[in-house]
Amino acid sequence: MQNMTIAAIATAPGAGGIAVVRLSGPESYAVAARVFRPANPNKRVEDAKGYTALFGKFLEGEDAFDEGVALFFRAPHSYTGEDVVELSCHGGSAVARRLVESCIEAGAAPAAPGEYTRRAFLNGKLSLTQAEAVMDIISADGRQGAALANASLGGALAKKIAAEKEALTALQAHLAAWVDFPEEDVPELDEAHLQTVLGGVKDELDTLIQNYDAGAVLREGVDCAIVGRPNAGKSTLLNLLAGFDRAIVTPVAGTTRDVVEQAVRLGDIRLNLFDTAGLRDTEDLIEAEGIRRSWKKLDEAGLVLAVFDGSAPLTREDFELARKCAGRPAIALINKEDKPTQFDAEIIAPYFAMVLPVCCQEEGTRKLISSAVARLLGTNQIDPHAASLSGQRQLAAATRAREAVAGALDAAAGGFGLDAVSVCVDDALDALCDLTGENASEAVINEVFERFCVGK
Amino acid sequence: MQNMTIAAIATAPGAGGIAVVRLSGPESYAVAARVFRPANPNKRVEDAKGYTALFGKFLEGEDAFDEGVALFFRAPHSYTGEDVVELSCHGGSAVARRLVESCIEAGAAPAAPGEYTRRAFLNGKLSLTQAEAVMDIISADGRQGAALANASLGGALAKKIAAEKEALTALQAHLAAWVDFPEEDVPELDEAHLQTVLGGVKDELDTLIQNYDAGAVLREGVDCAIVGRPNAGKSTLLNLLAGFDRAIVTPVAGTTRDVVEQAVRLGDIRLNLFDTAGLRDTEDLIEAEGIRRSWKKLDEAGLVLAVFDGSAPLTREDFELARKCAGRPAIALINKEDKPTQFDAEIIAPYFAMVLPVCCQEEGTRKLISSAVARLLGTNQIDPHAASLSGQRQLAAATRAREAVAGALDAAAGGFGLDAVSVCVDDALDALCDLTGENASEAVINEVFERFCVGK
Repeated sequence: MQNMTIAAIATAPGAGGIAVVRLSGPESYAVAARVFRPANPNKRVEDAKGYTALFGKFLEGEDAFDEGVALFFRAPHSYTGEDVVELSCHGGSAVARRLVESCIEAGAAPAAPGEYTRRAFLNGKLSLTQAEAVMDIISADGRQGAALANASLGGALAKKIAAEKEALTALQAHLAAWVDFPEEDVPELDEAHLQTVLGGVKDELDTLIQNYDAGAVLREGVDCAIVGRPNAGKSTLLNLLAGFDRAIVTPVAGTTRDVVEQAVRLGDIRLNLFDTAGLRDTEDLIEAEGIRRSWKKLDEAGLVLAVFDGSAPLTREDFELARKCAGRPAIALINKEDKPTQFDAEIIAPYFAMVLPVCCQEEGTRKLISSAVARLLGTNQIDPHAASLSGQRQLAAATRAREAVAGALDAAAGGFGLDAVSVCVDDALDALCDLTGENASEAVINEVFERFCVGK
Repeated sequence: MQNMTIAAIATAPGAGGIAVVRLSGPESYAVAARVFRPANPNKRVEDAKGYTALFGKFLEGEDAFDEGVALFFRAPHSYTGEDVVELSCHGGSAVARRLVESCIEAGAAPAAPGEYTRRAFLNGKLSLTQAEAVMDIISADGRQGAALANASLGGALAKKIAAEKEALTALQAHLAAWVDFPEEDVPELDEAHLQTVLGGVKDELDTLIQNYDAGAVLREGVDCAIVGRPNAGKSTLLNLLAGFDRAIVTPVAGTTRDVVEQAVRLGDIRLNLFDTAGLRDTEDLIEAEGIRRSWKKLDEAGLVLAVFDGSAPLTREDFELARKCAGRPAIALINKEDKPTQFDAEIIAPYFAMVLPVCCQEEGTRKLISSAVARLLGTNQIDPHAASLSGQRQLAAATRAREAVAGALDAAAGGFGLDAVSVCVDDALDALCDLTGENASEAVINEVFERFCVGK
């Protein structure tokens, strides 16, 4: 398969000024020569040097259907490490599609999803975690999420994991010598040293794992349920949060029954807001169903904004809502701060991670909520240049490594002997190699690249 | 404004492997040097030659947030005729947006809609009709529509209009000499020659104007109403037409009340299908409203597919529908060809442009309908390499020119004297110059480029 030359549209689909069709593989220049005719008749595609470009016409057979630029890369100095030609044609799906078809007629194969990045990985241009970072960069829509992914692409995670592996490998060499040749004069391992090394590795892995959720929030956004009694100000809050980033906000007149959804950007976090039915006892069947859905959203959401009417006394429904928020990532917003306070926030405070008096009609409230959310979800703690784990695959491998190191620490502390410690350290090293893809199986590699779209 | 250096994302929005940010203007290299650091420290952005590229990192201040390729063009050898740098970063909106922001911090201005192509026009790289062709290529989603637009970009329309203008200008010179210097020895214009020249120009303009609708269908698609009695097979037809190009077809169970919309590609034509409520007398108010909308769609659509049940006798409703189709671009499909025929198609035939016996459950029917539609709309007559008019602006100018030429012919035939002929020919030349943009006003130019998106 790797001997095939592949072609696909590399830019996003839809109308744009430019679309890029990328060829990669040993026949890239030959295929390009068939579909691209330089405007300067003295220039030949086959002779083009790497990192140079030519202007000309795109052909299907002898039929010139567009004009544009061909940019050449010679192996191994390209994204994939192979010969690559990038053909920039006019944007718009018809022309770019036709150019791909023409490349296929000229001998190229259609690229599979993620095949360019897979080839870059197989040719040693990227590690597996870097390849995953490419995927994250493409799908990031916030700048901090993109910065995190860029740190991974730059190798921040790979370097961090390499350092931990080195520590474990040095330890393992020592352990192996001691276990395998007990009669030799290998100095016994100092228990304090063992604790220091293993404890250090465990701490680093703990930090990575702890930051995983916040990193995922930055990369992927979080579902946020807005809950509260009728008329507490939920829709005003939705408008406040949505109004500045989105033109169209669903005007919620009367009682909201269906869950109203709206994606907004709050600081660096994309919130998928769910405005829900006002929570109260009702005999109306449709409204009751709406309320049932509100409770469900509250249980599923990664963030809960519970709105209370600060100008009215606390009710039984308010208290019930507060109790449901216990243990959830929930912020209580005591609304209508501008009016005389009638609400006793202290009664509900124990059930919430944070309690904020606000006025949902004032613009400053948006910033207040934004920084509270960043604190609650830990996204303000994240250094965008530091190593971070991305995706369930990396998290699972890191967790396995951490468990194995914890097991080694237990074995050492419990006096199970260095044999047991050695077995655990082996497991940890194995898990770390899985994480970086050094001993990734074909199945794991397939899993990683199946997440990609065609053209990357 | 033209002295500003502009920046914008030139590729389509959304997730993709590559996004391109384009700089154009005198400071392009200076801005690029601030946002792009070549990986090879011996290379300098300022020294980069046209049609060469560099690999490196994209910066915001000192913060490297992505890596990619910068491709350089030196004025006048670029799309806009100015210094241009195209920065290819990873696709995905966060990174590309950040790169534009970084360019703006580094001194570029955000590009206005269509500003790259406007600069290309103002710098003489493209004519106005070629600029309009760029717009058409971008928005084309069928290959024949894209081919038509490419012919215009290649100058097919410009050449055709130039030829007509030349003929009129030669005539006008002769007329002017004769009118202005009657006492001189200018040979009188031969009436037959006058008729030949003017008639020839009028024929060419007539052809352009006649093909306008079919060209517009190829470029933009056409709204197609599917109408007929309940259970005649309208939804089966929708499934047949949609099934092969679209994964999801709205399953229409029971009576369709709302108009169901579905875009499909039929040969080279994009049909926006509207499946409508079955036409019959009803006392049900909602159904009646649905039927009212069906009739409305029938009146507005650029193509009507009227489905009749061939296995049942013709009804009063069928006849009413047929009468409404009179004078419309309508095809009668006599469905259920596989069953014994009970339907008398001859009664409805006079009201339709075409009558086809079909079986909407057979796949071959799709092709049959496709070629009938191409014939009816004239798209099968169009030579994709020939000159064609695009957009109301060009059509209006061509129509004005044709009217003026017709006026000149009338004046010559009616014996109004060569003065009157000369005035008409002047008007025609004026209209043709409007068409090509040679004497386009600022307002016309603005109108053309306002249709563009940012980044083109």
